[in-house]
Amino acid sequence: MTRVLGDADAFVPDALRGFARAHEDEISLVDGGVVRANPLEPGKVAVLIGGGSGHYPAFAGYVGSGLAAGAVCGNIFTSPSTAQALRVAHAADAGGGILFTYGRYAGDVIHFGEAERRLRDEGIDARTVLITDDVASAPVEAADERRGIAGIVCVFHIAGAAAERGDPLDEVERLAARANSRTRSHGVAFAGCTLPGADHALFEVPAGQMSIGLGIHGEPGVRDVPLQPAAELAVTLAAPLLEERPHDGRRAAVIVNGLGSVKYEELFVLFGYVVDHLEAQGVEVVEPLCGEFVTSLDMAGVSLTLLWLDDELEELWRAPASAPALRKGRVSAEAPTVRPTAPRGSAAAEPAPAGAAPAPPATPASRRAAEIARRMLVGARDAIAAEADRLGELDAIAGDGDHGIGMTRGLTAAVEAAESADAAIGVRELLQRAGDAWSETAGGTSGALWGAALAEVGLSLGSPEDFTAADVATAVAAAHARVAALGGAEPGDKTMLDAMAPFDETLTERVHAGSGIADALAAAATAARAGAEATSAMSPRRGRARPLAERSIGHPDPGAVSFSIIAAALAGWVADFKGSE
Amino acid sequence: MTRVLGDADAFVPDALRGFARAHEDEISLVDGGVVRANPLEPGKVAVLIGGGSGHYPAFAGYVGSGLAAGAVCGNIFTSPSTAQALRVAHAADAGGGILFTYGRYAGDVIHFGEAERRLRDEGIDARTVLITDDVASAPVEAADERRGIAGIVCVFHIAGAAAERGDPLDEVERLAARANSRTRSHGVAFAGCTLPGADHALFEVPAGQMSIGLGIHGEPGVRDVPLQPAAELAVTLAAPLLEERPHDGRRAAVIVNGLGSVKYEELFVLFGYVVDHLEAQGVEVVEPLCGEFVTSLDMAGVSLTLLWLDDELEELWRAPASAPALRKGRVSAEAPTVRPTAPRGSAAAEPAPAGAAPAPPATPASRRAAEIARRMLVGARDAIAAEADRLGELDAIAGDGDHGIGMTRGLTAAVEAAESADAAIGVRELLQRAGDAWSETAGGTSGALWGAALAEVGLSLGSPEDFTAADVATAVAAAHARVAALGGAEPGDKTMLDAMAPFDETLTERVHAGSGIADALAAAATAARAGAEATSAMSPRRGRARPLAERSIGHPDPGAVSFSIIAAALAGWVADFKGSE
Repeated sequence: MTRVLGDADAFVPDALRGFARAHEDEISLVDGGVVRANPLEPGKVAVLIGGGSGHYPAFAGYVGSGLAAGAVCGNIFTSPSTAQALRVAHAADAGGGILFTYGRYAGDVIHFGEAERRLRDEGIDARTVLITDDVASAPVEAADERRGIAGIVCVFHIAGAAAERGDPLDEVERLAARANSRTRSHGVAFAGCTLPGADHALFEVPAGQMSIGLGIHGEPGVRDVPLQPAAELAVTLAAPLLEERPHDGRRAAVIVNGLGSVKYEELFVLFGYVVDHLEAQGVEVVEPLCGEFVTSLDMAGVSLTLLWLDDELEELWRAPASAPALRKGRVSAEAPTVRPTAPRGSAAAEPAPAGAAPAPPATPASRRAAEIARRMLVGARDAIAAEADRLGELDAIAGDGDHGIGMTRGLTAAVEAAESADAAIGVRELLQRAGDAWSETAGGTSGALWGAALAEVGLSLGSPEDFTAADVATAVAAAHARVAALGGAEPGDKTMLDAMAPFDETLTERVHAGSGIADALAAAATAARAGAEATSAMSPRRGRARPLAERSIGHPDPGAVSFSIIAAALAGWVADFKGSE
Repeated sequence: MTRVLGDADAFVPDALRGFARAHEDEISLVDGGVVRANPLEPGKVAVLIGGGSGHYPAFAGYVGSGLAAGAVCGNIFTSPSTAQALRVAHAADAGGGILFTYGRYAGDVIHFGEAERRLRDEGIDARTVLITDDVASAPVEAADERRGIAGIVCVFHIAGAAAERGDPLDEVERLAARANSRTRSHGVAFAGCTLPGADHALFEVPAGQMSIGLGIHGEPGVRDVPLQPAAELAVTLAAPLLEERPHDGRRAAVIVNGLGSVKYEELFVLFGYVVDHLEAQGVEVVEPLCGEFVTSLDMAGVSLTLLWLDDELEELWRAPASAPALRKGRVSAEAPTVRPTAPRGSAAAEPAPAGAAPAPPATPASRRAAEIARRMLVGARDAIAAEADRLGELDAIAGDGDHGIGMTRGLTAAVEAAESADAAIGVRELLQRAGDAWSETAGGTSGALWGAALAEVGLSLGSPEDFTAADVATAVAAAHARVAALGGAEPGDKTMLDAMAPFDETLTERVHAGSGIADALAAAATAARAGAEATSAMSPRRGRARPLAERSIGHPDPGAVSFSIIAAALAGWVADFKGSE
């Protein structure tokens, strides 16, 4: 559990600040993450990594020569926002293009993907290599749907070493993708981690058991088996990796990784047996790593990673690296490099924050709608806050258990943005600011989707002289379309769409049939609730580790439930409001 | 708790083997520890560190350039033996002399001290600098009685960097002592660690509390207080260090150290507040370290260390270092150094193991006494094994809880050595071999004392034509004197001497008064038991952290209890034996 903290909500910025103070010669803090203290040579590729926090040394510890140019650091187990990724990219960019590389998680894919798109719009060449090393998360025939665990370190170093020697972006991208295609990991968990401020672990493994196929976001493994002696555990961990051994797989970089509470001596015991087993299988072990490389707070677990080397990958794997958490190669007596005199990055080459732009004049109707939207956001926040624990529990069944926390955080930020906005602001600007605040603060997939949905509703409503029920229905349909496009999910995939789609359809149908907005919303909220309940029977089809999918059958999707809670709150609020008019 | 292990008894050798495999380019395994893979340049001082295992990166992780030449690695939380220290010293020696430096713990002081003495006898200049950084373990007026915790890393690097640049032994010793005199640490514990193979933690801290003044061997802190927010914790940790700030204390090397389960992000949060506080107090922070440097298995705790720098210490603190667990300075692209083709150390420059020497002929009486000693050792082993849990619990009150395990391990090895010896062997050789095996296997203070006691009994009995009760009493008196000299304790210090002294006195008195050996032993065992019970009222005066001493009042000393258990077993066995004759 987490015992050393100040304000639990400030845990990640507090930790990043301390990290930067501890590594001032190597690292500079920027808004959204960290970059190297010494800029890249002009023309070099900037390799950018990142994801949620709680995984140190991943990600900030891998910023340095032969590794990443910068790391985008989200909240605990939560994707950073698009805006964060853009700020770090601008601070790190040296003119040679940007390679984003990170473990494949839905929230990260959305936010980094959007950042990549925006960089390209700005004329900066940006690419992405998703890391998919966890064999337990999907079968080999769906290897590109796997999630990333400790094997990310292999890809980070291969890409970083290629960038360091001056390879162009095409080549850095090719080598990173090649490294990913030859990296496999497999882990076991003994006990779950506890989120900062929480008082119990995200999951428990029964005494004397271990859970095979761990995730690094507090997800349990996919099946429990009895604890094994170290020699047997080494074979268990290696088995699926050896099963996917490439035909030319004779040499391998090996990582034995501890998740947090399995300590060094235990890792070394395991490592000895792993090497015995690999050598017996004819695998030559090249420059192995044994320690804590990708953690999950204080989770008790261990994973084994193999990167199957060929000549070009071996040269890069053996290349030097120097970052706070990983050094390869010899240390010279050279004096430390000079620190730049001014903090870098956050001031330059960035769009002004949305909240600072002067609001365009709004119509009286738009201002009135903005005031209604403000109050609705408060109602939504209170409704979600009241159910946050249940949402967290639902999410913990097959996910990381932070859905309730993330929704509450996002809605709180949205309410603050709405309440701090000028009273003269219209509904369009108000919802855009609230959406941006939600996305930025909550992070994660649901933060990105809700942020985009709010902004889309605002955009659709615009600033006319009057609003009709049909305008509301059109705005909801636009938000629905935006969420579907951004999230890449379809109805039946067990996501918030399964509540949002019936909500949209019922609302549109009722409004077109001549219902008043209060009645139409009430019917739509009922449909959303039925849609959320129906997700109990579904198995998630995308974005989650497949074996985990089975666990969630019989339980509704937390995102769909959140949607139905908010829909009910809004419908109730509108009914009261209309009643009081 | 420890979940990844093979045979719990082989945990430490298994871990060392894996460690060496993971760091083949840097480290070579020798019998008893590790040395650098690349020998020191001839004439350089070999800085040797060491102690019990369970503290990784201490000690093996600090073997490398700018740090130690070798590490002597004992069992979990147990001092290595004199023989181990000698073997590592011989493997590391480059002709410039040896500096032993380690945290001040009774067992380490005995074993390393004996190794130092023997090296000098061999003509190798050897010195010792004890590290005493833990302010919680004794008041400032008894600063040289303090124990060593994470501040050992400061002394290791200062001494190692001085040796690396070629300073002679006098100078390396002076600088190490100066670094120790200016290093202070202070820690807090949140939860105890669990020994490999054990199923519960060595101590518990009540929920919502923390224990101030932690030890690194599973000792709890000296007082419990409510948990504090990170900013307040930073002030709590720093307060006693700032209280002992030297008049020229303006710059400091700072270490924020996690004991095992307090993870990186938490450590960084704390570090940020520590730096804020130190800077507010006018302290300039120089090349700080924040991470896990001296652990205690999976213990949850954190400590703060300050090394007050002056110009000569700052130059050394900033010097490069390159070891598996600590690198300072820049990494160059230079190729890794060539590994020596043959394993080093264990074969060269060593005395042959005691067990291999041919036994001198023994008298029939001596052979018969040897057979009796064999059976007595079996009886002692069984008696201790039956009480091992209770002895562990007693030891956990103010110590590391491994007394029962250590005694059982030592007696088991003594029995094995006795049983595998030639049947023609006499009692002198048999007890010397059994004593050596006990000391080597059990490690720790009690292992050293019991091993010496057995050898002394054998030496005193010799190989005469006949034995009398007076011979036995004389042998016991000799062992008593040896234990008193080696351990440096006096009656009333709450050690095994408090049982051994009345045992010896009563035995001598009764034998001189004409009692038979069985009656005399029975009376002596009763006196030993009374002596052990009397230790309940005592407070330990030496070799333990002072504030911990208070905890043990009301409980007997585990070493004294062990002695009384063995005394009773021997007396009972002799009574049965005499009865059956």
